[in-house]
Amino acid sequence: MGRIKLILSYDGRNYCGFQRQKNGISVQEKLEDALKEIYCSDITVTASGRTDAGVSAAGQVVHFDCDDRIEVKKIPIALNTFLPYDISVISAKKVNSDFNARFSAKKKTYVYKIYNSPVRNPLLPFCAHYPIKLDITLMKKAARFIEGEHDFKCFMASGSPVKDTVRTVYSVDIKKSGSVVSVFVTGNGFLYNMVRIIAGTLVYAGSGKIAPESVKDIILSKDRKNAGKTMPPEGLCLVKVFYK
Amino acid sequence: MGRIKLILSYDGRNYCGFQRQKNGISVQEKLEDALKEIYCSDITVTASGRTDAGVSAAGQVVHFDCDDRIEVKKIPIALNTFLPYDISVISAKKVNSDFNARFSAKKKTYVYKIYNSPVRNPLLPFCAHYPIKLDITLMKKAARFIEGEHDFKCFMASGSPVKDTVRTVYSVDIKKSGSVVSVFVTGNGFLYNMVRIIAGTLVYAGSGKIAPESVKDIILSKDRKNAGKTMPPEGLCLVKVFYK
Repeated sequence: MGRIKLILSYDGRNYCGFQRQKNGISVQEKLEDALKEIYCSDITVTASGRTDAGVSAAGQVVHFDCDDRIEVKKIPIALNTFLPYDISVISAKKVNSDFNARFSAKKKTYVYKIYNSPVRNPLLPFCAHYPIKLDITLMKKAARFIEGEHDFKCFMASGSPVKDTVRTVYSVDIKKSGSVVSVFVTGNGFLYNMVRIIAGTLVYAGSGKIAPESVKDIILSKDRKNAGKTMPPEGLCLVKVFYK
Repeated sequence: MGRIKLILSYDGRNYCGFQRQKNGISVQEKLEDALKEIYCSDITVTASGRTDAGVSAAGQVVHFDCDDRIEVKKIPIALNTFLPYDISVISAKKVNSDFNARFSAKKKTYVYKIYNSPVRNPLLPFCAHYPIKLDITLMKKAARFIEGEHDFKCFMASGSPVKDTVRTVYSVDIKKSGSVVSVFVTGNGFLYNMVRIIAGTLVYAGSGKIAPESVKDIILSKDRKNAGKTMPPEGLCLVKVFYK
């Protein structure tokens, strides 16, 4: 028996999210189905965290325990044979039994991508389309107020049961390449819809709806209503999970 | 009455091709449905050429004739309101009545994209996956033999009824960015599956299955069986149509 860490990439647009659910097809279900094919037994995976319906991942991390019947370096190709085309295991590695994809995670980076052009672009399916010209300088100014340890209740979907809403955001980096604006957010943990609401708030700043400095007050208010809209899920992607 | 030139982008993976067909949903059908919505009459479009099932476009060109009820610069957004999310009108321009999207076209550029990595990447849906390491230098050498005016019968899908198989390929440029190899092909016209077979032949050269120089003999043989495999449609994209 041993513990395996997988890095997983998926197009989340066809799934109800990472986590197994009764109503809908999840990435977890597809992955555990593939594991059953290659190990001939029921294996449950633990992920670094759930991603929501429609959200993609370049570097989701999961762990599971299994016997040694398959050489570790052959696990990705073995699993990919049984996984649908929109899910791919990038790598597999043997880890100590105290490694836990969820509890050992130190920080995570998400990217929210916006295609900022008057008309949409069907060849950029992992970008949200935003037609009004965004001022990147204003977005960068606003982003500075998000970095640090704060009570981020204002950036949590209303109705979420989470009580402790203090998180540390290590960095919010905004990059522009052609018409694509990418918002990279790295933090020690994220509240429900947090990155999508951060993206929506930065879009407000970038389009002049709010002053960049007002982000400070929005955070202090702890009121979801003061923050920007929840941007659509297809623009969000879990880039990387960091461990010690 | 006037003639309008549209530039159109689409994710072709959900369509039976550009051209209207009895069995399957085409881009043309969706576009003409949207034109009917905004002009309240049946309008037929003429495209620069058909793209095959599953093939995408960044810059397909079509023309159609219509009355002046909609300001030209508002046509893209008006049409995009009625088009599905995987089709987008990028621009509209009034042109002379002697402009014909098909017959006025001087040359076209296609790109064939290959994700060259041991495991597939679901976040690159417009790339074909090829797991064996490709030698770009060999591909570039092979590409040189394709450029020029030749009888390209060897690169035409067998069974195609086209008699005159002489075309001019102005350039075959190969670029590598990370693990993505892009083959840009510009020519005055293309035979059925020609770019996909060229890509397959260059993949043979890049993986050492054939010598780069043998491409010259493959072309001279005029025999489809000597060329590489027809690469899958999802890697192909019509980039640009050039007019005088």
